Formats: sequence, structure tokens, C-alpha cells
Amino acid sequence: MTGAERTSVSRRKLFGMAGAGAALVGTGAAAGIGANRLLGGDSPAQAAQSVVEFHGEHQAGIVTPVQENLHFVALDVTTKDREKLVKLLRTWTDAARRMTAGQEVGTGGAVGGAPAAPPSDTGEALDLAASSLTLTIGFGPSLFDDRFGLASKRPAALIDLPLFPQDKLDPARGGGDVCIQACADDPQVAVHAIRNLVRLGFGVTAVRWSQLGFGRSSSTSRSQSTPRNLFGFKDGTRNVKAEETDVLRDQVWATAEDGQPWMAGGSYLVARRIRMHIETWDRESLKGQEGIVGRTKGAGAPLGQTAEFDTPDFQVGGAGGEKLIPDDSHVRLASHENLNGARILRRGYNFVDGSDGVGHLEAGLFFLAFNRDTRKQFVPMQQALSSKDAMMEYLQHTGSAHFAVPPGVREGGFWGEGLFS
Amino acid sequence: MTGAERTSVSRRKLFGMAGAGAALVGTGAAAGIGANRLLGGDSPAQAAQSVVEFHGEHQAGIVTPVQENLHFVALDVTTKDREKLVKLLRTWTDAARRMTAGQEVGTGGAVGGAPAAPPSDTGEALDLAASSLTLTIGFGPSLFDDRFGLASKRPAALIDLPLFPQDKLDPARGGGDVCIQACADDPQVAVHAIRNLVRLGFGVTAVRWSQLGFGRSSSTSRSQSTPRNLFGFKDGTRNVKAEETDVLRDQVWATAEDGQPWMAGGSYLVARRIRMHIETWDRESLKGQEGIVGRTKGAGAPLGQTAEFDTPDFQVGGAGGEKLIPDDSHVRLASHENLNGARILRRGYNFVDGSDGVGHLEAGLFFLAFNRDTRKQFVPMQQALSSKDAMMEYLQHTGSAHFAVPPGVREGGFWGEGLFS
Repeated sequence: MTGAERTSVSRRKLFGMAGAGAALVGTGAAAGIGANRLLGGDSPAQAAQSVVEFHGEHQAGIVTPVQENLHFVALDVTTKDREKLVKLLRTWTDAARRMTAGQEVGTGGAVGGAPAAPPSDTGEALDLAASSLTLTIGFGPSLFDDRFGLASKRPAALIDLPLFPQDKLDPARGGGDVCIQACADDPQVAVHAIRNLVRLGFGVTAVRWSQLGFGRSSSTSRSQSTPRNLFGFKDGTRNVKAEETDVLRDQVWATAEDGQPWMAGGSYLVARRIRMHIETWDRESLKGQEGIVGRTKGAGAPLGQTAEFDTPDFQVGGAGGEKLIPDDSHVRLASHENLNGARILRRGYNFVDGSDGVGHLEAGLFFLAFNRDTRKQFVPMQQALSSKDAMMEYLQHTGSAHFAVPPGVREGGFWGEGLFS
Repeated sequence: MTGAERTSVSRRKLFGMAGAGAALVGTGAAAGIGANRLLGGDSPAQAAQSVVEFHGEHQAGIVTPVQENLHFVALDVTTKDREKLVKLLRTWTDAARRMTAGQEVGTGGAVGGAPAAPPSDTGEALDLAASSLTLTIGFGPSLFDDRFGLASKRPAALIDLPLFPQDKLDPARGGGDVCIQACADDPQVAVHAIRNLVRLGFGVTAVRWSQLGFGRSSSTSRSQSTPRNLFGFKDGTRNVKAEETDVLRDQVWATAEDGQPWMAGGSYLVARRIRMHIETWDRESLKGQEGIVGRTKGAGAPLGQTAEFDTPDFQVGGAGGEKLIPDDSHVRLASHENLNGARILRRGYNFVDGSDGVGHLEAGLFFLAFNRDTRKQFVPMQQALSSKDAMMEYLQHTGSAHFAVPPGVREGGFWGEGLFS
């Protein structure tokens, strides 16, 4: 018996045990779960600790504490057959259940199937733990055309985003019928998940664009420190946090009363690829940078205050009487105090896609934000920023997309079940 | 006093202490070292643990256990002034000393300098530990033209790499007068290091190309498990390991007797960007994949054996008498048994640069290998692989570069000191 045969036998046994795996994790019976894919390294207990529950009222990957790595993909549906699309959504959901629990994408997996057939799992995450993988799906405005009979189900909030001042959008980096966001604490786990979902979609969907990211540029939980973006500043200090349940209810989660009952418990995702002109920014003085952001670079305190989480005082003046937080500073324009209370939940990532043709970093922020009604939250915020933010001199929005993120999945259910039933 | 002022005062004090920081780490007096950049999170002791010593007989980043993340940059020298280049090498070395010790790139740092001046550090790694950052420099063949009087110092082993069969090289992804390899266990730390070195080079060097990578695709120490590449197979099982000091001496480290005394203790680095046709590979059967690689996918055992580290038996036959490890398998063609004993030390990375224009992953292996004489080691190996390897059907070499990696730096010395003195 070869090593591979022995491995596949023991793996198949594990798969037999793991049918209700994702559910068991929630009840604490974690032994063996998450270990299926784990041929070495962490103990099963450690692996189980890195499993984020897939099922729930809301999809994971929204208020989940932001993981370190991102692979985001936008796909177009290439079939006009509604049943094929629904079947794929069921297949994807099963695969997502398994992979977020640290298991291979399908029974048989990378090495347990028939030798004459392609493996059902591509294998590069075989020895890796679940790594807090979350998979989050969204549906773009274009899905609600006449192909699948969904026009009447299109939420009013799922607008075609307007062109904002200074947008320089690349069509090859925007739009999409469907998106899937994979976040994990290991980049290979996120890449593996997207690759395998894309593979399952062959003949039904095709990749439109994708983006990798690292170094989460926000926190979504008070348990996380605030990370820094590629301008070197703490980013997302005032972000909506998982602990702010009132704010989540009011500003993140859609309700049936918002117009489309299938979206109750869902949210709206705005994705923007924001190129940062790093080299230009690096030539700006410290004082200039801090004035543009409206915060100190070290502590991240609002100008005029001393600590990161101090509330900004937008009126306080300096010695010469001028406002310490300038009128065109980023923190002022993005603040809910100046946007009729509107807030958004951000969970974007830094990205570096190598170098451009003139030797500059092709780098920036892949902005991901969830809100209850993009028309009332993201759009007015971005209008203010695009037209007035001093930081825009160093930014270029190169990609844009908008998705309706359906509510969470019940055990036995599937992504978008409410939309298609 | 604002938070930023307080921070910068305390940081400046730390910098005063840290003059001999990198040296102290080696002697165990680690308290405070590595903590300079660390405004929160790990304790100083934890941070110091993640410091890799910069000085030594050889540069770090070759036999150092492979870190999780890579940012690799190739630069062209844009000045013809030798003294400016030497000055930059000194500046870079000082910066590399500091950053690998977890410190900011220059005194003053991100927030401790004059407010009217650009910060000397860009700041995005301010709260992050050293993360086992290594910085490794190399000099390309083009540096040895007539610009800097180095023609007589060009090592014979630093050849212009031949065009191998099936190469489809993109000039925008190859060559370079100088390379810097940054490896770290945090991608933001690697990106920060390259960005700041590039910035210091402004006016003397310009970025030619760069590449990010993740999920180390080799091990360089027996203390590391063997990772998997994007074909889902364990990769680098038979790689040269740090513990094999005899092999390192014979096959990795150049000596004075090899021809150029300034290269004694150095090595030769081959960088190849190898695009993998992931989607095609994924349609290959398990048996087919294993035959191409010559190993099982699960355990990574040589075909015919049972465990990963079993020695391949290239003669053993199957039931039908055919060789279990096919003649055109990767493991056979790359094996030192079939290459007159030639081995190389690999420390490549997986990469995913988003999607290409037809929705396929722009992904693969960024191959990095160190050897003592590229003419006798990498070149015959790649000739064999490019012309016979069954895996070539799924690969495309899109970038290629070759560098002479000088020996390690003594305290007070600088990168390439032997070359320029």
C-alpha cells in the first residue's frame, strides 16, 4: 500500500465522520473537526479554534474580526439557465460549509477519489488549518436583469453606483453578477477557497476580476488593534465594530421593511479599488500628511486630542485661530457627525500588485464596506470625499462594484435561497 | 502636548538607546530591541524573538528558515556616478540593519522628525514586530558593464542566462542591475522594507520590476514542514537544508578560489517567474498529476515508496514492468542523481497576481534558487526540465533574472563592500 493510499483511506474515514461537522463545531464537539485537512502541524484542538461558524442569521465575513488576508472575486454568470445557477449556489454553499470548517471541498478531496479522475480538491491547503476562513457571497445589479426572472426582486438600495468626481474606473476591475469574498489568516487558504469555488462554477460562471489583499486595513471588533494603511496611518479607528449592536441594526443589516424580504439580515457591499500614489505621498511633510488625514501619524489621535479613540473636536482651533482639523481633511469629511449620522462598516485590505510601468508601486487600499442602504450611507460619504477630500490628490479609484449580500444560511440551506425561492 | 509629540519623544529616546541594537541582539541583551517600532501588541521579548541577525559570514535570507511572505524587487541604477552608488549601498545597509532589527528606517522615523519635512519612515510597519525580516541584495550582470568600472570584477558564474526551450519571457519581468529580496512573516513588513529602500534609492536607482509572494513553496530547514505549491503538491522535499553544511559548502557558497575573491561566502541567485496554468492542471487526473510530479499528492512520497522523505527509486517498476517514476517526471529530471550530483537551494514563493484577461488565475511559482555556480547547477537542471519535463505543458516561464549575491556584512560594513573596495 502506498503512502497516498493510506492517506486517502484515513481521510475518507474522517470525511464519513464529518458530515455534520460545521454544526458540531458550534456545540463544542470540536475534536476531529478542522483536522480533516490537517495532515501535520497544529493539533485538532488548535485547528478547531480557527473555525468561524458558517451558519447564522447573517453571513460570516462581515462583523467577523477582520482576518489578515483576502482573495476577492467577481464573476459573471455565463448561462441563462436559472436552474443551473441555483444548483451552483447549492454546490457552492456545501463547498463553503466544508472549507470554512477546515475540510476539503468535496468528498474524495485531493487524493481520495478515483485515480483516473481529476481530484475534487486542488490540494494546496491540505496541510493548513481552517485559518478563520470566511466566505461571503453577494449579488450584483446585473444579476437582476431579465435572464433569471429576478428583476422584481432587485432591491432599490442595489443601485448602479454613480460615477464620482475624479473616478478613473477600469471596466476590467469593476462590476460582476456575483462576488465571493474569502478572508482567512493564511493567504493560501483564501486563495484555495476562491480557486475551488471558481472551479465548481465552470460552465455556469466565469471570473470577471479578482483582487488579493493583506494587512487588514480596518478592525471590526474592539478585540482588534487598529492596523495601518499604506499611507502609514491608523485606519478605521471609528469603524463600526461588532460590539455596537445598535449601530449594526440601524446601519448595517437590511430588514424586510427596507423593501425586499429576501434581504432581511443581509447588507450591501461596496468594493472600490483605490490606487494610492505612494511615492508622492512619501514626499509630503509629516505636518501635511497629518493635516490631510486629520489625525496624528503616531498615536492616530484626532488633531487637537491626545489618544486614538478620543472623539474628534471639529471646532477646536489652534494658536492662530484656524481649525486644527482642516475643512478638507479626511476624518472630517468621512465623519458621521458631518454626514447626518451615516456610518459604514469597513473591512478593506492593503494591496500591492507589483510595480507599474514607470517603477511606482501598483498599490493601495481595496476598500470593502457594508451598509444597510448604499444610497444613504456610502454614496453621500463618497460624494463628500471625492469632491472635497485633500487626500484625493494622492488617490485614484480604479475599480468599483456593488453587491447585495444576502442574509446568513441556515443548516441545510443555501446562499441566496430567499432570492430564488 | 499632543499624543504625537509624546510618542515621538519616547521614540527618540528609544532610538538613542538603539544605536548598537542589532549587535546586542546577538549577545542576548534583547530587551528593548525590536520594540522601537512596536507601539502595541507583542512584548519586547516576543518582538526580539522574531529578529534574524543581519550580520554574518553569509547574508541572511538564504539558509534562513523560509518566512511566509516575500516582496522581491529588481532595480536599475540610473546614475553613472560610482560614488553615489556606493553611498546608496551604505545607506541601504544601515536601513536594512535597522529594519531587520524591528526599527524604523532612519532616526526620526515616521513621526519623530521635523513636522515640515517628509517622515524618514513611511510608517505602515510602526506597530509590527520585526517578523523575521531578512533583506538580501544581489548584483545583476548588467551592473558589470562599463558604467562603474566593475567589468573585471564580474564573476564568470554570473552569466547571462540562456533562453531555455519554451521560455516566453516578458522583458518587463526580468533583468535588473540590483535586486533586493525581502522575506518576513508579515507581508506588510516585507512591503514596508522594499518601499523604504526604493525610496532611499530615489535619484540613484529605479524599480524595474517587483513580485510579491506568499505560502513559501520550499523549506530551507529540517525544522520546517514541506509546504505545497499551487498544483497542490508538496514542493521542495529534497531541497538543500540549512543543516546540510557539507552540501551548502559544496553547492551553495562561492569561494575565493571560484575566481572572484569578493564573492567568497556569497552565492548566485536565479529568479524565475513561472506562471502555472492552474485551470488546465485542475482537469488532469490524480494519476496523471502524480505521474507528472513523480510523487503522491497526499503524503508526497516518491512513487513506489511510502513516505515523503523516502529516497526515490528511479528504477522500480510497476506490475506491468513500466517505471513507476516516469522518464519525463519532474522529480526524476530535477534529481541530483540524474544531474551529476548538482543541487540548488530553493526558496521560492507562490504568487497570485489577480486574474488574466480571460478569467484565469494569473498565478504560479516565483522560483528563487541559490547555487554556487549557475553554469553547473541551475542551467543543466533547467535545460533538462525545459526540454523533457511533462510538467512544462502546464507551465510558462514569464520572467528571468540572475544575480551575484555577495557575502554577508560585518558590523560597520556595507552591502557589496568587497566589490567596490
